[in-house]
Amino acid sequence: MSFSKEISFMPEIEQVIQKYLAAWNATDSEQRLESINNILAAECIYADSHMPDLIETSELHSGFIDRFKSKFPELKITLVDHPDIHHGFFRFHWQLTQPNGDIFTKGIFFGETNSENKITKLVGFVDK
Amino acid sequence: MSFSKEISFMPEIEQVIQKYLAAWNATDSEQRLESINNILAAECIYADSHMPDLIETSELHSGFIDRFKSKFPELKITLVDHPDIHHGFFRFHWQLTQPNGDIFTKGIFFGETNSENKITKLVGFVDK
Repeated sequence: MSFSKEISFMPEIEQVIQKYLAAWNATDSEQRLESINNILAAECIYADSHMPDLIETSELHSGFIDRFKSKFPELKITLVDHPDIHHGFFRFHWQLTQPNGDIFTKGIFFGETNSENKITKLVGFVDK
Repeated sequence: MSFSKEISFMPEIEQVIQKYLAAWNATDSEQRLESINNILAAECIYADSHMPDLIETSELHSGFIDRFKSKFPELKITLVDHPDIHHGFFRFHWQLTQPNGDIFTKGIFFGETNSENKITKLVGFVDK
């Protein structure tokens, strides 16, 4: 499933989500941090069931993804379906896939955006 | 699927969620408002894709359920699975069923609780 040709027709929040997943898939740490800085509000909170603490800065957020990517460089995260968006809240189903297309894990992110369409909250739950 | 006999062994937030669904299923408006007042923090925000505005008081929240129940008195809301809970955030899948067991609609609530295990946010998304 590819949304790359449709990006100009997407709701702005969906474009932001696509850019966030592209930041996960980036191979360069500096590029990732630059993207994360543009996508997230400065006060963005990230909560993940695998982590004891919340992540509350872009630097820590980008560094967390760096560490994930160093462990699993072959995995790619993609949207499973179009995000659902209402009242500045969103949810989307994601999957992490191996190069051969096998699903490594999948789950859902709930989130919030501010009036500038920057992400202010991301809360992840794993389904598999 | 019934959790009624297990309630004393549940995490406290899951008990709160069970009580919230019981408030949906209550047939008496005053009983519902009393329950909702006990379950939700005073500043609880409710967001539903079917509604243009957020609900921001217990009275409006309970009245919203009253109106739903007056349209669909035969439907009962139940948990589909145990809620997932981390960092004060939760999600749970729900279904609204007809008396014959047919599923009328189903979806997911994402939410947050405060340090007193009162619900401070509920954001609903419909799956079917």
